[in-house]
Amino acid sequence: MGRSEDKVFTERLFERVEPIWNSYLEHPFVKGLGDGTLDLEKFKHWLKQDYIYLIEYARLFAVGASKATDLAMMTTFGELLHGTLATEMALHRSYAAQFGITQEELEAVQAAEVTESYTSYMLKMAHQGGVEYTIAAVLACTWSYHYIGEHLAASNNNPGVYQEWVDMYHSPEFTELKDDCIRLMNEAAEGKSEAELKVLEEIVVKTSYYEYLFWDMAENISNWPCKETV
Amino acid sequence: MGRSEDKVFTERLFERVEPIWNSYLEHPFVKGLGDGTLDLEKFKHWLKQDYIYLIEYARLFAVGASKATDLAMMTTFGELLHGTLATEMALHRSYAAQFGITQEELEAVQAAEVTESYTSYMLKMAHQGGVEYTIAAVLACTWSYHYIGEHLAASNNNPGVYQEWVDMYHSPEFTELKDDCIRLMNEAAEGKSEAELKVLEEIVVKTSYYEYLFWDMAENISNWPCKETV
Amino acid sequence: MGRSEDKVFTERLFERVEPIWNSYLEHPFVKGLGDGTLDLEKFKHWLKQDYIYLIEYARLFAVGASKATDLAMMTTFGELLHGTLATEMALHRSYAAQFGITQEELEAVQAAEVTESYTSYMLKMAHQGGVEYTIAAVLACTWSYHYIGEHLAASNNNPGVYQEWVDMYHSPEFTELKDDCIRLMNEAAEGKSEAELKVLEEIVVKTSYYEYLFWDMAENISNWPCKETV
Amino acid sequence: MGRSEDKVFTERLFERVEPIWNSYLEHPFVKGLGDGTLDLEKFKHWLKQDYIYLIEYARLFAVGASKATDLAMMTTFGELLHGTLATEMALHRSYAAQFGITQEELEAVQAAEVTESYTSYMLKMAHQGGVEYTIAAVLACTWSYHYIGEHLAASNNNPGVYQEWVDMYHSPEFTELKDDCIRLMNEAAEGKSEAELKVLEEIVVKTSYYEYLFWDMAENISNWPCKETV
Repeated sequence: MGRSEDKVFTERLFERVEPIWNSYLEHPFVKGLGDGTLDLEKFKHWLKQDYIYLIEYARLFAVGASKATDLAMMTTFGELLHGTLATEMALHRSYAAQFGITQEELEAVQAAEVTESYTSYMLKMAHQGGVEYTIAAVLACTWSYHYIGEHLAASNNNPGVYQEWVDMYHSPEFTELKDDCIRLMNEAAEGKSEAELKVLEEIVVKTSYYEYLFWDMAENISNWPCKETV
Repeated sequence: MGRSEDKVFTERLFERVEPIWNSYLEHPFVKGLGDGTLDLEKFKHWLKQDYIYLIEYARLFAVGASKATDLAMMTTFGELLHGTLATEMALHRSYAAQFGITQEELEAVQAAEVTESYTSYMLKMAHQGGVEYTIAAVLACTWSYHYIGEHLAASNNNPGVYQEWVDMYHSPEFTELKDDCIRLMNEAAEGKSEAELKVLEEIVVKTSYYEYLFWDMAENISNWPCKETV
Repeated sequence: MGRSEDKVFTERLFERVEPIWNSYLEHPFVKGLGDGTLDLEKFKHWLKQDYIYLIEYARLFAVGASKATDLAMMTTFGELLHGTLATEMALHRSYAAQFGITQEELEAVQAAEVTESYTSYMLKMAHQGGVEYTIAAVLACTWSYHYIGEHLAASNNNPGVYQEWVDMYHSPEFTELKDDCIRLMNEAAEGKSEAELKVLEEIVVKTSYYEYLFWDMAENISNWPCKETV
Repeated sequence: MGRSEDKVFTERLFERVEPIWNSYLEHPFVKGLGDGTLDLEKFKHWLKQDYIYLIEYARLFAVGASKATDLAMMTTFGELLHGTLATEMALHRSYAAQFGITQEELEAVQAAEVTESYTSYMLKMAHQGGVEYTIAAVLACTWSYHYIGEHLAASNNNPGVYQEWVDMYHSPEFTELKDDCIRLMNEAAEGKSEAELKVLEEIVVKTSYYEYLFWDMAENISNWPCKETV
């Protein structure tokens, strides 16, 4: 019984964010990934900023582990943290190397304004609330990347040089990661009042907006917009 | 409707901790306060440790304000913080002065083991969860002091030199503070699942045990038990 | 001696951020404040977003109080928190009322993207580090508003309807607040290594960039840029 | 140069806590481990409480990762967290099984008062300060267990059934863990002012006192002392 209501929460979330996520599919950056026409410089900017993002996403898992309400949850967050730092970031480095970005370059990257804002928002919310805030903050990135990966793969377009990217985000491993995040969210939502669910929904909506801004930042190869003015 | 269920939560809490709180009334330190026989040195130890306690209790209000879910709650915690630092601590200093403890002595006091442990437990829980953890952590101290104040005042004993102490903790101002804490707890419990309420109850029970240990520490004029051994 | 070195840190900070702050003086919004030509709708957008900003700024003071390393520092943060919630926000409400914004409207305001990003950044850094991170995060807003207020007042322009705004930010009270923030920063910087000072400087620089974005957001009456696209 | 000064900090710490740590060697529980005379019920109490301790120690590593100032430090804490949850706790469970404690029993264990107090103190300090507070909080447990392991191994006593315990805590793996903790501490102390070092020293001293209380709790098979009174 509880189970079926749980499931309803991420279903409810999906209905809420689906139009936002669909706008990603129409975004020139994502379309360019899907049909292989994306400018390499734009992609390299994404790769660099995503490297910073991953570090802060790992930090978010650490906050989750520090607030876990039982050992199983702490272990899940510990594995997500370790998996991100030990596996995902190594993959990211070798993938970036294929595009001519050296490890030194990656390590020298500074967060663009959107990267700083988006990760700060997630971490702030994670610090401010119970562990369910962390779980909600984690959700949109992983789930929407899977959503994009699936849609691009299902289209008749040829991603060309971005084939590996498309494959990665709907791979069985990534699908499992996405399913873990959804399961955590539904478990955390169990028995919560409507007022509490609204707060969690707000987090998922805002991170979904930040995802859009992240695609925009990559498309425009932007850093700190005001720096040029200043 | 919600109101009446809310009330049930602090009623439920009271039923759970009543035997623990009644044990305070049987504690030699509290009995000595009530009939005026308490050794002055013991009382002075309590006064000094309570000074440290108040600082950390104020810190707890600051954590509460930092996690508040709306402006009204942030304002309440801000007032509790400000009231503790600006009013309560000044009262404490002048009250301590009546017992020959100078401000310099107060400021030089180091936390005894129980004071450190108790306040660390409250602050740790406050950091770990949403704002409802802070609210639960705050409750036992204020409410049980009021409970003690009321019982000592209602007895036929003469507190003697401790009359002011007894009067303070069932004064209209302190009763209002206690009522504020109870109201915050019931508002925070609204709509929470049984699993969540159990966690909050656990916090109130543990802080109630720590209250007992605090009376013991005062009675035994103890600091760090191991220091003497070491 | 220590004093004079202390002073050096905020002097060093000022040299670093001066060009950024000077760019505020050239910003159309700020120029419009100074010569009274600013569109009222833009100003009302600023007023509304600043209301949200103040709440989160107060939250930042709460984090500072929760991390304070001694009672004096906790008291300072407690007063800043209380002053913001009890005095500044009331002033803000009555000032907003002069421009036809009701309290209901203020309370219904949602954070624009820049407001969310900027305050999230400050709060995230505050949670992540020791209390010196909070102190650094607080600095740019208060100090740069004073800087702007002083410059606008010293110019030969007539702020017209914005005279009160200009007066407020270089009033004796606000100057004192600014001086308190500078003093806190220098005290916190005392004895810190160059590596630690660099981190604090980075916080002051980033918040200074966010200040620019905040003026931009007000000028463009923008909320969430992606919302219109989505 | 910096290096040699760094080393001085943990040397300075060691001089400060050596008398406290030596008192562990004189503690009946530790002596009983060393000569194999320790009552099995006492040891089983230690095993159970140490299981709780390990979970909270893992949580401390998570807080460390969440506050890490660079990727290398986040990775170190991530590995300590993962190592504790995936390896150490599995070892603990199988070791406990040798003494007839089932996994169900372990999972049902409630924190004793000392276990709650000690871990709360570490976590509270970790939340309150920068990452160096976490590093200081971690130190005494790992380092002093290694110190005890080495001393018991070097004595002519026969630990009997506790041989594996003694071996474990001066094994190459555990020695490496201890060395990692010492290295982290010295790196974090680099360039810190005397005022900051004093705070870190205080954390190491207090956790050392809590270690003594933990041995006492095991020796006396105590839980919550007041519970019996209440």
